[in-house]
Amino acid sequence: MTKFNFSKRVPADGTDAVGVILKAAADPKIISFAGGLPAPELFPVKAMKEAVDQVFAERGQEVMQYGAAKGVTALRELVLQRVKEKENVTGQLDNVLMTTGSEQALDLVGKAFVNPGDTVLVEQPTYLCALDVFKSYGANFVGVEMDEAGMKMDALEEALKAHPEAKLVYTVPNFQNPTGRTMALKRREKLAELAAKYDVYVLEDNPYGEIRFKGQHVPAVKSFDKTGHVFYMGTFSKTLAPGFRLGWVVADEAVVNKLTVLKQSADLHTDNLAQYAVVEFLKHNDLDAHVKQISDLYGQRKALMTEGLEKYFPQGVKYTDPEGGMFLWVEVPGVEDTVELFKQCLEHNVAFVPGDPFYAGEPQPGAFRLNYSNAQEDQIKAGMKQLGEALQDEGEN
Amino acid sequence: MTKFNFSKRVPADGTDAVGVILKAAADPKIISFAGGLPAPELFPVKAMKEAVDQVFAERGQEVMQYGAAKGVTALRELVLQRVKEKENVTGQLDNVLMTTGSEQALDLVGKAFVNPGDTVLVEQPTYLCALDVFKSYGANFVGVEMDEAGMKMDALEEALKAHPEAKLVYTVPNFQNPTGRTMALKRREKLAELAAKYDVYVLEDNPYGEIRFKGQHVPAVKSFDKTGHVFYMGTFSKTLAPGFRLGWVVADEAVVNKLTVLKQSADLHTDNLAQYAVVEFLKHNDLDAHVKQISDLYGQRKALMTEGLEKYFPQGVKYTDPEGGMFLWVEVPGVEDTVELFKQCLEHNVAFVPGDPFYAGEPQPGAFRLNYSNAQEDQIKAGMKQLGEALQDEGEN
Ligand SMILES: Cc1ncc(COP(=O)(O)O)c(C=O)c1O
Ligand SMILES: Cc1ncc(COP(=O)(O)O)c(C=O)c1O
Repeated sequence: MTKFNFSKRVPADGTDAVGVILKAAADPKIISFAGGLPAPELFPVKAMKEAVDQVFAERGQEVMQYGAAKGVTALRELVLQRVKEKENVTGQLDNVLMTTGSEQALDLVGKAFVNPGDTVLVEQPTYLCALDVFKSYGANFVGVEMDEAGMKMDALEEALKAHPEAKLVYTVPNFQNPTGRTMALKRREKLAELAAKYDVYVLEDNPYGEIRFKGQHVPAVKSFDKTGHVFYMGTFSKTLAPGFRLGWVVADEAVVNKLTVLKQSADLHTDNLAQYAVVEFLKHNDLDAHVKQISDLYGQRKALMTEGLEKYFPQGVKYTDPEGGMFLWVEVPGVEDTVELFKQCLEHNVAFVPGDPFYAGEPQPGAFRLNYSNAQEDQIKAGMKQLGEALQDEGEN
Repeated sequence: MTKFNFSKRVPADGTDAVGVILKAAADPKIISFAGGLPAPELFPVKAMKEAVDQVFAERGQEVMQYGAAKGVTALRELVLQRVKEKENVTGQLDNVLMTTGSEQALDLVGKAFVNPGDTVLVEQPTYLCALDVFKSYGANFVGVEMDEAGMKMDALEEALKAHPEAKLVYTVPNFQNPTGRTMALKRREKLAELAAKYDVYVLEDNPYGEIRFKGQHVPAVKSFDKTGHVFYMGTFSKTLAPGFRLGWVVADEAVVNKLTVLKQSADLHTDNLAQYAVVEFLKHNDLDAHVKQISDLYGQRKALMTEGLEKYFPQGVKYTDPEGGMFLWVEVPGVEDTVELFKQCLEHNVAFVPGDPFYAGEPQPGAFRLNYSNAQEDQIKAGMKQLGEALQDEGEN
C-alpha cells in the first residue's frame, strides 16, 4: 500500500472524535441529542418546490450555466436588506459575497487571514468545525473565557495584550454552538472597539440569531463596527434549508474582493439553482413567519429538555438555558473523563457530544452538548430520563 | 480606510489579468472567444426540470436537510459506473468523493498535498485556475514542455530527476485547457509508471474527455495506475450543467478519506438537490446521446473556426486542431507583447485570452486561447474575419 505524504494541513489519523461519536449515535435504538440538524418537518418543501418551478420557467438556461463568483445579485440584495433589518448591519452590494454554506465563509476567511503560526482567539468552548478550519491554515489558538453573557471582554483584552500578534477573534454571539449562550449588548460594543484598538479582525458567525424563542434581540457586533475590522457571516441553513448550502459574508469591500478571488479557486461560484430558488422563495413567502414557527417549536423542545434536566438529573448538574438556537450545554461535576461518560450513556441508549473537541485549550471535564431541534417531543422526554439515569449511575460509581 | 493584513496566500492587488480581460470582452459590440462556457442552448432544461420534480416528490425533506460529506451514495455509484465504462477507471464506493464542481477537487488536493515550497509540475501552458489554487497553498511550479501529443515524458522525467522533492504532477490529458491538446496513450502509461517510480502524485483533471468530436478515445492515466499515485477528477460541468457545481475525485481510499475531512471544513457537503437531480436525470435520460449532441455542435464550431484561421490569418500563424473540448490555441510569430495584441484586437471588436496567465514560467509571446463552444456560427465567421484583420494590421506595424 502506498503511504501518502499529506501536507501539514491534514489532520492525523484517528483524530475525528466527533465522527466516531456521531456514528455510534446513529444506532436506531439510541435516542441521540448528538447531532446538530434543524427539524426537517418544518422545511417549507412545497413553497420551495414552487420557487424552483418558477426559476426553471423563467431562467432554466441561466441557472444551468456558470455564474458569478460573488453570487446572484438579486440574492445578495435580499441578504443585504435582511441583515440591515434584522441586525442593523449596513452595506452596499460590493460588501456581500455568497458562499457555499457559511462553512465556506469560515474557510475563506481562515485562508485569507491566517498564516501558519498566527494567533486566533476563540470562545472557550467554541464551534468545533471552526477550530478544524483555522487549524488547517496553521492557527495557534488562545481560548477566551465565557460566562452566561458570552465571551468576557476583560479576558479578551488581557489576551490581546498578551498576544499583540493576534490576527482574528472568532465569535458566535447568538445562541452559541455549543453552549447556547448569547453575548450581551455592551460586550458587543466593546468587542468592536477592542478590534479597532488592537487592530485585530473579528469574525462574527451568526447562524442562529434569528431563531429566538425568548427575550430581546441583540444587534450584531458588526453593527458597532466603524473601522471595517468586523466580518459578519450568516446562512440560510437554520432559517430555510441547509441542504442548499447558502451562506454569506458581509465585510469591507477590500476584504470581499480578496475572499472572492479565493472563492473562485475554491469552487468558482455557488450553486445557481439554489440561489435563484431562495430569491423566488423570499419574493412569495414570509420568511419571518416561517422563522417564528421554527423558533416556537425549538422553544417548546428546549423547555421539555430543561424540564427533563430538572426532573431526572443529579443535584449539582449545571446547564445553560438558551433563549434561542438549537443547543444547550451541561456540566456534570466530578466527572473525569467525558468520553467515558458518553460510553456509559450509550449503554443507556442515549447520546450527546462530549465537550472536549469544542475546546481549543484544556477541555472542561464533564461538559457536553445537547441538541433539541432535531428530536421529537416523546424522544426528548424518554431520552432525558435515560440520560438522568445514566448520570445517577455514574454518580454512584 | 483600514489596511487589511491578508495572509501570504492572498494574491496581490492588480494580479487578476484574466478578470480584466473578461470584463473588456463583455462589451456587447465585441465578439468574444475569451470565455470558457458551454453552449447553453444545449442544456437539457426540460429533462432536468422533470428530474427536479421527481426529487421533490420523493425526497423533498431529505434534499433540504444536511447531507453526507462524501456526497449522495446513489450519485457516487453512478459516477463510478461511468468512469469505469468511459475511462476504464475502477473503484469502490470508498474511492469516490463528490465535490462542489471539480474546481473544489483542485482546491482539496492542493490543500491536502502541497506544503509551502513544494514543487508542482505542470504542463506548459496549463489551466490557469489550477495555477491559482496551487499557488495559494505555496506551490513552486516547474513547467514541463508539451507537444501535439501532450506533456513530453522525457521532459517530465528530467524534471523529476532535477526535482526529487516534487510532490504533484498536474495534467489535463484530454483537449487541454488552454491548448486543446490530448496526451497520447503511450505517454499515459509512462506517466503512471513515472509516478510510481519517483513517488510523485498525478492529479488527472478530465473535464473535457467525453466531448470528443473526432478520433479515438484514449483511456485515463488513472486506468494505468497500479500504486494509487494517480488521483482522477471529473465533472458534470461540460456534459450537463456547470451551474449545479458537481464534480468528483476518484482516488485511493486513504486519500479520499483525508480529502473528505478537508471537504467538511470547506463547505460541509455538496448541494443535495443538485446531486439528487442528476441521479434522477441519469435514470431517465441518455447522457451519452446528449454528450454526442454537444460534441457534434462543438465539432462544427471548431471546423468553422479553423476555416476562418486558414482563410483570414497571416502566413506563419500556428494553431492546434483539437479533436474535442472547447478550446484551440494560436501562436502568432513575431509578437512581443500578447496583451498589446489583445488590445489591438479589441479595437477590431474581437477578443481572446492572451496566453501569458496560462504559463507557470516564462510565457510564449504571441500565443492565445480561442473558445468555440459558446459562440454562434455567424459570430465565429465574423469574429475570425475581424481577428484575421487585426493580426494582418499587427504584422504591418
Ligand atoms: C456556529 C456555526 N457556524 C457555521 C456553521 C456552518 O453552517 P452552514 O455551512 O450550513 O451555513 C454551523 C453549522 O452548524 C455552525 O453551528
Ligand atoms: C481544466 C479544468 N479543470 C477544472 C475546471 C473546473 O470546472 P468545474 O468546477 O465547473 O467542474 C475547468 C473549468 O473550466 C477546467 O477547464
